[in-house]
Amino acid sequence: MLHGKNYIGNNLSSEGKVIFKTFNPKLNKNNDCNFSEATANEINKAANLAYDAFLEFKNIDSLKRSKFLDSIADQILLIQNDIVRVYCEETGLPDGRAKGELGRTIGQIRSFSELLKKGDWVNASIDTADTDRKPVPKPDLRKMSIPLGPVLVFGASNFPLAYSTAGGDTASALAAGCPVIVKSHPMHAGTGELVSSAIIKAVKITGMPNGVFSNINSGGIQTGIDLINNPLIKAVGFTGSLKAGRSLLNLANNRDEPIPVFAEMGSINPVIILPEILKTDWNNLATKYANSITLGSGQFCTNPGIIIGIKSTYFTEFVNSLSKKILDIAPSCMLHPNIIRNYNNNKMKLISDKQVNVIADFTDDVDVNYSKQTLAMVKGSDFIINNDLQEEIFGPFSLLVECDNMIQLESVVDKINGQLTGTIIASDNEISSNKALIDILKERVGRIIFNGVPTGVEVNASMLHGGPYPASTDSRFTAVGVKSIDRWVRPLSYQDFPSELLPDSLKDNNPKNILRLVNGIYTKNKI
Amino acid sequence: MLHGKNYIGNNLSSEGKVIFKTFNPKLNKNNDCNFSEATANEINKAANLAYDAFLEFKNIDSLKRSKFLDSIADQILLIQNDIVRVYCEETGLPDGRAKGELGRTIGQIRSFSELLKKGDWVNASIDTADTDRKPVPKPDLRKMSIPLGPVLVFGASNFPLAYSTAGGDTASALAAGCPVIVKSHPMHAGTGELVSSAIIKAVKITGMPNGVFSNINSGGIQTGIDLINNPLIKAVGFTGSLKAGRSLLNLANNRDEPIPVFAEMGSINPVIILPEILKTDWNNLATKYANSITLGSGQFCTNPGIIIGIKSTYFTEFVNSLSKKILDIAPSCMLHPNIIRNYNNNKMKLISDKQVNVIADFTDDVDVNYSKQTLAMVKGSDFIINNDLQEEIFGPFSLLVECDNMIQLESVVDKINGQLTGTIIASDNEISSNKALIDILKERVGRIIFNGVPTGVEVNASMLHGGPYPASTDSRFTAVGVKSIDRWVRPLSYQDFPSELLPDSLKDNNPKNILRLVNGIYTKNKI
Repeated sequence: MLHGKNYIGNNLSSEGKVIFKTFNPKLNKNNDCNFSEATANEINKAANLAYDAFLEFKNIDSLKRSKFLDSIADQILLIQNDIVRVYCEETGLPDGRAKGELGRTIGQIRSFSELLKKGDWVNASIDTADTDRKPVPKPDLRKMSIPLGPVLVFGASNFPLAYSTAGGDTASALAAGCPVIVKSHPMHAGTGELVSSAIIKAVKITGMPNGVFSNINSGGIQTGIDLINNPLIKAVGFTGSLKAGRSLLNLANNRDEPIPVFAEMGSINPVIILPEILKTDWNNLATKYANSITLGSGQFCTNPGIIIGIKSTYFTEFVNSLSKKILDIAPSCMLHPNIIRNYNNNKMKLISDKQVNVIADFTDDVDVNYSKQTLAMVKGSDFIINNDLQEEIFGPFSLLVECDNMIQLESVVDKINGQLTGTIIASDNEISSNKALIDILKERVGRIIFNGVPTGVEVNASMLHGGPYPASTDSRFTAVGVKSIDRWVRPLSYQDFPSELLPDSLKDNNPKNILRLVNGIYTKNKI
Repeated sequence: MLHGKNYIGNNLSSEGKVIFKTFNPKLNKNNDCNFSEATANEINKAANLAYDAFLEFKNIDSLKRSKFLDSIADQILLIQNDIVRVYCEETGLPDGRAKGELGRTIGQIRSFSELLKKGDWVNASIDTADTDRKPVPKPDLRKMSIPLGPVLVFGASNFPLAYSTAGGDTASALAAGCPVIVKSHPMHAGTGELVSSAIIKAVKITGMPNGVFSNINSGGIQTGIDLINNPLIKAVGFTGSLKAGRSLLNLANNRDEPIPVFAEMGSINPVIILPEILKTDWNNLATKYANSITLGSGQFCTNPGIIIGIKSTYFTEFVNSLSKKILDIAPSCMLHPNIIRNYNNNKMKLISDKQVNVIADFTDDVDVNYSKQTLAMVKGSDFIINNDLQEEIFGPFSLLVECDNMIQLESVVDKINGQLTGTIIASDNEISSNKALIDILKERVGRIIFNGVPTGVEVNASMLHGGPYPASTDSRFTAVGVKSIDRWVRPLSYQDFPSELLPDSLKDNNPKNILRLVNGIYTKNKI
């Protein structure tokens, strides 16, 4: 059923001779389809088509783009059974996860469709003229957001749907009016192909320009480099490792025309547990965190990789309980042999540190490509002086940091690099008396959570999924929620422009009925 | 009266042995004061103080920060006569310009003070909890903007007040809650010192933390490099040349922790004149543009460096009239011998091109350091194939591009690099029938102007001063107007946070009475 070809705009293409296959980690063997590695010529074609499409797509009314997004969602739903099957074959993830992620992906696409219908996202701002002003007349100025141009999206290894082909980056870029070229993740090229086929159907059904979407297959890294170096690409979205994200940032900045890169590069998501709450909640917390650490084999960028507490009887109770409970959880299959190899190597490297003690380690035999969960512990004083302990271990692993007292705990938190999330577990009393600690934590994270777990990323306008470097390459933007559209737009000011040539969002009579900043006041009123 | 020392926080400091002087271009001699080049130790002290100040400053209520900004404006006004005198001594610019720029600077500072009083700038967003949601409860998420940290601001050579010490970058960063270290422009270190003294007085009067502002003197480039490489600096603002701006961007991106750089790097500000309007307006347009090209010796980033038209009798009339009128304008003094040297060298280089013809050249003797205005012309077909003709000539120079027809004119516009502004001069009829041309121009500019001149940058929320690279390093932001505050903030999400620990902007009862996005609806209502 899969064809293994690239979508260069609406056309299937397989010019190259290099092929690769995806892998079924549960069966421990390659899947059948041969995927055709895109050639330099195919990449250039996709970029040229994307730019030509951009000149048309950017002027297509938001409401039509909204219908395009809805159609993508509809077309995905029509083939959802096939998508879920291929997803599971390519990831080893369970059926329920695939379905849940598909639902989230559809929800994300529809949220951007709704955003386009409302129309406020263009940030319209109007300052009217004052021809009598002295010493010089005041011009009429009107400003709104316009799309940057073709966007390059890299599929994420750990979210074959929600952060990949028709995921948040693609949906937000298309919503903004930017054509998208997806560099499909090689581990789930089949899932990507199916989702791409749905997008291409939607392109045709809603009459969008050819080239508004392309899907590029590649098993190596050169394709990504060639794409990012193509001068017609104007922005990049990426979710993955720090090493890969930083490489993309460097490439983008070394272009003749540097372009924005939004890379979400993962995190160790510190969790701080204060002493008082442990007295009553140590057992519940242990259950909650045993589940959070092992959820999806720990293959989430919001996985709690480090848990910080203060030495006490109850902290020990918590640690012992967590150690016991985590070993009771059945190991699960990881995405790919490369992922499990990295997990094991990085875990071994970290626990080989003299200061680090393993406190729980799953040692029973497991199926091939299944991960074994591990907990380790280190003293606060040792953590502070060893930056290597902040390396992300992508998988079901967490490092407990035991501090001597609150002062040392603050020092530990003060040493932590930029993170997607930070969680504070505390009683109402003790959180009120530890505002300084919260203040230190806030400086380091994009989202601060009270008495919860970092796993689970809500998709709405108030979500910030991103954070200070190295959590992301630009802490000023989010990768999740409708505000992620801001990554792909820039404001344009119109000075003294004739009404008929102004976009509807900026016309006097406000035909789109959107909220606008008019002479400093937010209003939907006409001018 | 000037002391020549650095302000390291509130303290005057002159540890180093290296000194430099500013220059009076009208008198063609050095000014008296010896300015003390900051040492590495002084730079580190300023950065450490700024970071310590940040931890306090970011939590100071917006209304107090508003008072701080007002106090800066008040203190500048108290010494405005001294500032204007030193400004003129250091720039050769006339008294009226100094006063006008001072007024604009005060206006900018007060506009940020007003912004803080209104409070909406934090972009508050709230999505309330739904504990009954299946399969998982929906958390309470609240998001608002918080400051990035200490900001490094480089003073601009051509705006000693409005884009320098207490200019737009500094005012917006302080408003956001970011301490500022200014690397004062060496050509007007005295003006910078006086303005710094006013800021430091305001720091003391309003009880702001020591280190919230520092002023660093330097005649070389190493100081800037050391500052940008200091890990406590979290963002950079710059206005100047492409070469310098790009260097800063590269330095910032090569840090262990890359940081955002907003560099506004100038422009050739294309002006497109369509044929029909010339029939009636050629003479008026010639007057308007002779003035715009020579305003302030052409030392504006929005100076019209290129004027594009279609060969016709009336275009020739316009060119002849412009040539005559521009020579009637009295030359004026440039900022510094370096500036006039660069002007002359770059102009000579451009007009030495075989395809370029000089059509007006001021040849009379002028005072030393006064610039001579020049107009040159090139054919559209030659412009298209020669990217060197797009080099900015900083000074009273403009290149006329004569096209054979509208198709060639569109090709010329299509070749133009990213610009701050693009202007279209047309009759109502012909602009309506040239939407494609406008569309091409929009892709290349941050501000598009109808029947005006690009010089004159209005300061309000609808201004976009920036644009596609190389006009700026990040087209998603503006350097002018209250929205420039967005460069120095990032969103932070609070998940399930106790009400008492939420910032006022996010509390249920909306004590600041600001506009918030609550469950997808913009409202000032309580929750």
